[in-house]
Amino acid sequence: MRRVAIINCGLTKVDKHWKKSLRELFGDAAKAALETSKARELDALIVGNMCASDLSDQNNVGALLADYLGITPITAFRIEAACGSGGAAVLAAYTAVASGMFNCVMAGGVEKLSDGVGNETTLSLGKAADAEHELFYGSSFVSLNAMIMNHYMHIYHAPREAFADFAVLMHKNGSRNTYAQLPFPINRDIVLNSDKIADPITLYDCAPIGDGAAAIILCPLEEAPKYSDNYTEIIGIAGATDTIDLSSRSDLLSFNSTIVAADRAYKMAKVTPRDIDLAEIHDTFTITGAISIEDLGFSEKGKFHKLLAEGAFESGGVVAINPSGGLKSRGHPVGATGAYQVAEVAMQLMGNAGKMQVPDAEIGLAQNIGGSGSSTYVTVLRRGK
Amino acid sequence: MRRVAIINCGLTKVDKHWKKSLRELFGDAAKAALETSKARELDALIVGNMCASDLSDQNNVGALLADYLGITPITAFRIEAACGSGGAAVLAAYTAVASGMFNCVMAGGVEKLSDGVGNETTLSLGKAADAEHELFYGSSFVSLNAMIMNHYMHIYHAPREAFADFAVLMHKNGSRNTYAQLPFPINRDIVLNSDKIADPITLYDCAPIGDGAAAIILCPLEEAPKYSDNYTEIIGIAGATDTIDLSSRSDLLSFNSTIVAADRAYKMAKVTPRDIDLAEIHDTFTITGAISIEDLGFSEKGKFHKLLAEGAFESGGVVAINPSGGLKSRGHPVGATGAYQVAEVAMQLMGNAGKMQVPDAEIGLAQNIGGSGSSTYVTVLRRGK
Repeated sequence: MRRVAIINCGLTKVDKHWKKSLRELFGDAAKAALETSKARELDALIVGNMCASDLSDQNNVGALLADYLGITPITAFRIEAACGSGGAAVLAAYTAVASGMFNCVMAGGVEKLSDGVGNETTLSLGKAADAEHELFYGSSFVSLNAMIMNHYMHIYHAPREAFADFAVLMHKNGSRNTYAQLPFPINRDIVLNSDKIADPITLYDCAPIGDGAAAIILCPLEEAPKYSDNYTEIIGIAGATDTIDLSSRSDLLSFNSTIVAADRAYKMAKVTPRDIDLAEIHDTFTITGAISIEDLGFSEKGKFHKLLAEGAFESGGVVAINPSGGLKSRGHPVGATGAYQVAEVAMQLMGNAGKMQVPDAEIGLAQNIGGSGSSTYVTVLRRGK
Repeated sequence: MRRVAIINCGLTKVDKHWKKSLRELFGDAAKAALETSKARELDALIVGNMCASDLSDQNNVGALLADYLGITPITAFRIEAACGSGGAAVLAAYTAVASGMFNCVMAGGVEKLSDGVGNETTLSLGKAADAEHELFYGSSFVSLNAMIMNHYMHIYHAPREAFADFAVLMHKNGSRNTYAQLPFPINRDIVLNSDKIADPITLYDCAPIGDGAAAIILCPLEEAPKYSDNYTEIIGIAGATDTIDLSSRSDLLSFNSTIVAADRAYKMAKVTPRDIDLAEIHDTFTITGAISIEDLGFSEKGKFHKLLAEGAFESGGVVAINPSGGLKSRGHPVGATGAYQVAEVAMQLMGNAGKMQVPDAEIGLAQNIGGSGSSTYVTVLRRGK
């Protein structure tokens, strides 16, 4: 299997991009990735997206974007794994390059959520759950995660304030991120006193809905120096699934898809959680952040709040959690989020993260969840030079 | 790069499956593929689907199906390239196995179109075109293809009756296919006198809308004998794109994505069109069948009707075109069609095609188009033993 490098990335700010269409949004990210790279000739484009059919009346997104970028007749298709679409696109691009069939591949993601009218966006996002067994009965993502959060606090006696403090850390990090949708600091009271969305989840426990696109260029590791002075290596990558509906799970307080995907990725990378310097994790809600920290092995079960209080997850701490601000502050452009995460980790390891830069970052991890933990993708990167 | 084999396939009849949900439909195909194979342990599931979000309120289809099949925590995701989704899923599964990262991978496709109410299905299918530049102005797929057919007849002086005769051949073939949606013979007058859909396209020039699922198990060639007494090898596989909107093309009478994908796949397989014994081609409309025959190199441009009249495309002729009956008679379960085609070619080369069997079939080809030729996937298979 060929070793695979990431040689460049391009991101748009996560925002309400009223004046940009789906193709223009991805075009901005792709051009940013291509402009600063010598890899002019792409062999494939693999793009994550979830909601374009519902909110932009557009399928066939691979061909649409290849056409807009002027790179036909390249091979191009879309991957969908709900909010895990971006991570899945990176995995598919990895095997495309590792196989030797394709050389330079652009992986990425794009999502345009703010065009939804009324409850269109909420309904579209709800399709990541089980349509027949959850969505049909009125469950939304926030209601499903509110059940998990209540249960977590009950079982582990975790203080409500700890979740607020997680949000505070995310906004502190995100305030250094020029691509973030909510780049401002908050405090604990703001979270606790913000509107209740589904008890106990308040507005500031939730990731915002935003538009965004991310593009990443992969190539064989041995050719990376030809294309770029700076690169990172994908040393571990894996996906895993779990039951799509929560009611079939034996445990609501741990996502088996994260545990399995992380275990596979750590083994492939020959590292342990202790080796990870920074991690971009999937904190759709503060409870999802807490569970992810534990499932990835950065904390014992039920004790994330203790390490959080000790500053373990700050930049320069034991493992820097979401130096980008995470979904909570950077934003959550659903099908693009996994591509943002991998790009952000790569930028950290290339020393290109600006004010977000984690000092001496050598090994980083991205964790991208689809549904309520029904699909997870974990990618482990190492500094390339 | 590891060589890759197909060791088994499972199909459902293409039909209006009112009593089957999306997951049950794919479950039937997957179980049929698994039951007759010794490959009990799958490493990934990659499934093509286009319309589940619109017509079944369901995204995250990879996790949904892995869950239903009881094969979590397998890696599973959906691929979408409009009507080319199934072909793209086979390509992604190919690189997954060829890379060495995954061993046994199920590729497939599933589509449930008959649940659409009113014009929902037509609108959903229209999203394979350019939403902003075509769909918004009221173009449907049949209207776009009607323009192409008119233009073709004008430029090449092809008789209208030749298209009817192509449909007649498809129904003759499909009448031998137990999986076909329209398994009955027709004659030229039935086509010519059927309802006009968009002049000159009549009802019997069109592929029917149906529900269906197909599953294919891929593994490394060298391990194929361990799992199955009978297998085929994927010797060439490629995708290609073209502009998504027709108005940007320099030529409406040829799909560059087919020409490029076929060229890549032929070169990879080290074969020419003359080596192909049978081909499952993408005849959404009779005009699409004609153009595909020419783009794949089975006829000079503008002359498909001459070879058709000579019987070149009959089973046992120069190249058997669509022994399954093609989209026209087998049916067109959009995101599953490409998986049906590869499965049907594999069944032919394994000698398992029953009454459809083409004698002495050694090399076969599947061609799967997304949109009006904006994405094409071509797969070339060779008899494995």
